[in-house]
Amino acid sequence: MALSPSQQNWLSTSITTTTTTTKHSKTTFNNIPSQIKLNQTNLSSNKNPNLTYSINPSKTSITQNQNNPPLVVVGSANADIYVEIDRLPKEGETISAKTGQTLAGGKGANQAACGGKLSYPTYFVGQVGEDAHGRLITEALEIGGVQLDHLNVVSNVPTGHAVVMLQSDGQNSIIIVGGANMCCWPEKFDEKDLEVVKNAGIVLLQREIPDSVNIQVAKAARSAGVPVILDAGGMEGPIPVELLSFVDILSPNETELARLTGMETENFEQISQAVVKCYKMGVKQVLVKLGSKGSALFVEGEEPINQPIISATKVIDTTGAGDTFTAAFAVALVEGKSRKECLKFAAAAASLCVQVKGAIPSMPARKAVLDLLHSL
Amino acid sequence: MALSPSQQNWLSTSITTTTTTTKHSKTTFNNIPSQIKLNQTNLSSNKNPNLTYSINPSKTSITQNQNNPPLVVVGSANADIYVEIDRLPKEGETISAKTGQTLAGGKGANQAACGGKLSYPTYFVGQVGEDAHGRLITEALEIGGVQLDHLNVVSNVPTGHAVVMLQSDGQNSIIIVGGANMCCWPEKFDEKDLEVVKNAGIVLLQREIPDSVNIQVAKAARSAGVPVILDAGGMEGPIPVELLSFVDILSPNETELARLTGMETENFEQISQAVVKCYKMGVKQVLVKLGSKGSALFVEGEEPINQPIISATKVIDTTGAGDTFTAAFAVALVEGKSRKECLKFAAAAASLCVQVKGAIPSMPARKAVLDLLHSL
Repeated sequence: MALSPSQQNWLSTSITTTTTTTKHSKTTFNNIPSQIKLNQTNLSSNKNPNLTYSINPSKTSITQNQNNPPLVVVGSANADIYVEIDRLPKEGETISAKTGQTLAGGKGANQAACGGKLSYPTYFVGQVGEDAHGRLITEALEIGGVQLDHLNVVSNVPTGHAVVMLQSDGQNSIIIVGGANMCCWPEKFDEKDLEVVKNAGIVLLQREIPDSVNIQVAKAARSAGVPVILDAGGMEGPIPVELLSFVDILSPNETELARLTGMETENFEQISQAVVKCYKMGVKQVLVKLGSKGSALFVEGEEPINQPIISATKVIDTTGAGDTFTAAFAVALVEGKSRKECLKFAAAAASLCVQVKGAIPSMPARKAVLDLLHSL
Repeated sequence: MALSPSQQNWLSTSITTTTTTTKHSKTTFNNIPSQIKLNQTNLSSNKNPNLTYSINPSKTSITQNQNNPPLVVVGSANADIYVEIDRLPKEGETISAKTGQTLAGGKGANQAACGGKLSYPTYFVGQVGEDAHGRLITEALEIGGVQLDHLNVVSNVPTGHAVVMLQSDGQNSIIIVGGANMCCWPEKFDEKDLEVVKNAGIVLLQREIPDSVNIQVAKAARSAGVPVILDAGGMEGPIPVELLSFVDILSPNETELARLTGMETENFEQISQAVVKCYKMGVKQVLVKLGSKGSALFVEGEEPINQPIISATKVIDTTGAGDTFTAAFAVALVEGKSRKECLKFAAAAASLCVQVKGAIPSMPARKAVLDLLHSL
C-alpha cells in the first residue's frame, strides 16, 4: 500500500507540527489546554523515558519488562456466548443450536490479555459481576498474566455479555448486555483510584464502557504525562470532544474512521482525508487498522507510515485480531520501539492471532512474535 | 376439579390392577417383562420400605432422612442465559438488551436442587463441560446440598446452555445448545456406574438427555426394584416404548400429555382419556401437572386423586415450579407419605417456588413447606 504522490502532497500541505510542552504537575492538570499533544518534544521530558520512539535493542528479551511502567488497560470485560444456528428463531420459537461456546472477551479484557501474553506488565481496570461469567474472565486474564488488583467485582449486576448468533449464511446477529461494563462505575474517581493510571507507562482505552469513565482516566493520564491510546471500537456514538482532547493516539479501523468522521474510507486518499478530520477533532496521531490491507500510522506534520499485513500461513479466525494489533502496538510503543517497529510488531502479533480460534486463546506469546519477526 | 360420573365410569371400566411381583436379582434383570409395574404389592416386597404410601408422622422432621435411600436424579444441567430485549435482532444486526442474567438450570439439575433443598439425600447424575457454566451449575447444586459424586465433567464439550430471549411482548424465543447433556455419555453403562441408581430410594428422570441413557438407567432401577418417575418435559419426540416399560410414574403437564398421546387435554375428561392412552402405552401411574388448575395423580384401576393449587400470596415467577412439583412429589413418595400427602406436599413446594424469582433460587427448604402445610 504505497502512498500516491497526490496523497503525499495533500498530507504535506495540511499537517502542522506541534511543539507545545506539557506541564505534568497535579495541581494544574485541570487547566491543560486541549491542544496539548503527545509528541517527541513532550515525550523527552515526561516520566516515561521509553516513549522516545528510539530503538533499544536490549528491549527485545522476554523478561525485560519487570521494572518498566506498566500498560494499563481500562475497559470492558465480556462473556461472549457464541451459538451456531441455521437461522434465527421466530417469536416464541425454541430451536436447537448446532453448537455453542462461551469465551472471555470484551475489547478491554482482550487488549489486557494481549499485553499480559506479550509478557509486558499489564494491569486491567474493569468491572465484572459476581457470577460465572465474571469468574470466566478473571481466570482468562490471570492465565494471561494480567494484574487484576484493579478489577472491581460489583454486586447485583451481571458481568457484561454478548450473545453472538452465528448463522449458516455467514450473518451474525448479536445481543449485548452491558451489565457491569456500563454501570456502577464511580461517578467521580478519587485520586487513589487513578494512581494506577498515573503510574502507567501507557494507557489503553476502548469504547465499551461509559465515556465519562474514559474521560476521567484519560484526563488523569494526561495530567501525569502518560500517553493514551483510544481504540475507537465499541459504542457507535460520536466520541466526546473532551475525551479526544486527552487522547494521544486514536485507533479506528476503516469502518470506525468513516463513522467518526462522516467521510468515506474506501481508499488511502479518502482515509488520509478522514484522518485530517481527526486531527481537526483534536487527535494528532491516528493508527488506522485496515484489515487485510494492513495498517497505517498518521502523525500530524509527518509522512504516514504504512505497514502491510504479515501473511498468515492459514487464516482460521480473525476474532480479536484488531485488539491484538492495538495492544501489541501499545506494548511496543511503551517499550521504546520506533513507530515503524511498533507497527511491524503489531502486525506480527495480529498475524499469529488469526491463525488460532478465539480471541484471548489466539493471542501470541512474545517469543512467537519475535520468532516471526526474525523469520521475515 | 371433581370427576364427573361419566369419567369415573369410563375410568373404572378401562383400568386393571396389576399384581405381578418383581424379581430383583441382578442376574435376571435383563429378562424382566415390560409389563411389570410398580404397585403396592411390589412395593411391600421391595427394598424401599418407605414406598408403601403409608403415613408415618415421624417422617416430618428436617433431619429425618440421613439413612434413607437417596433420591437419584439423572438428567440435564443447563446454564440458562436470559436476555431481556425489545425485539429479536435481524440478520447481521447488533442490538442492546435491557438486561440479562445467567442462572443454573436444566430440568435434571433443577429437580436435584429441589431434592437437596428439601433436605432429602439427593444425588445428581449428569454431565457438564469444563467451563464457567459447568462451574455455575456445580456451585448451585453444592449450595443446594446435592451430592455430586456422579456429576461427570467432560472435556472439549460445552456445558449445555439455553439462550432465552425474553421479548417485551411476552414472547420467549429460545436457542438450546445440548452440549454435555446430549453427548459423551457412556454408550453402555457398566455395573459400577449404575450402582448409585440401584441403591436409590427413587429415581427421577426427564427428557433433556439421550433416551438411550434414560433407558439404561430406568432398566437398572427396575432391576433393583427402585421406582422410576419420568418427567415428560424436555425433548418433544415420542417416548420410546422401552423407556416407558421401565417407568413407574409418568409426569407430564397438560401440553406434554397432549403431545405424547395425540389427544386433546383441555378439560378433565379429555385428560382422563389421554391418561388411559398412557396406561396402554405401558405406564400405570400418571401424575399430571395442570398449572393453575393444580394436579392429579391417576393410578390404573383406582380413582384419580386431585390436588388443587395452594394459593401463593403473590405469583412472582413460575420458572421451575413444574420441576419443584415433580421433585417434591418424589421426595414425599420416597419418604413413605400417602399419595394424597405427596400431592399436597408437592403443591405446597410449588406454591412457595412461584413466590421467588428464578428456578433453583426459588426452591423452598423443607421447613418452609411444612410451615405452609401446617398453616392450611
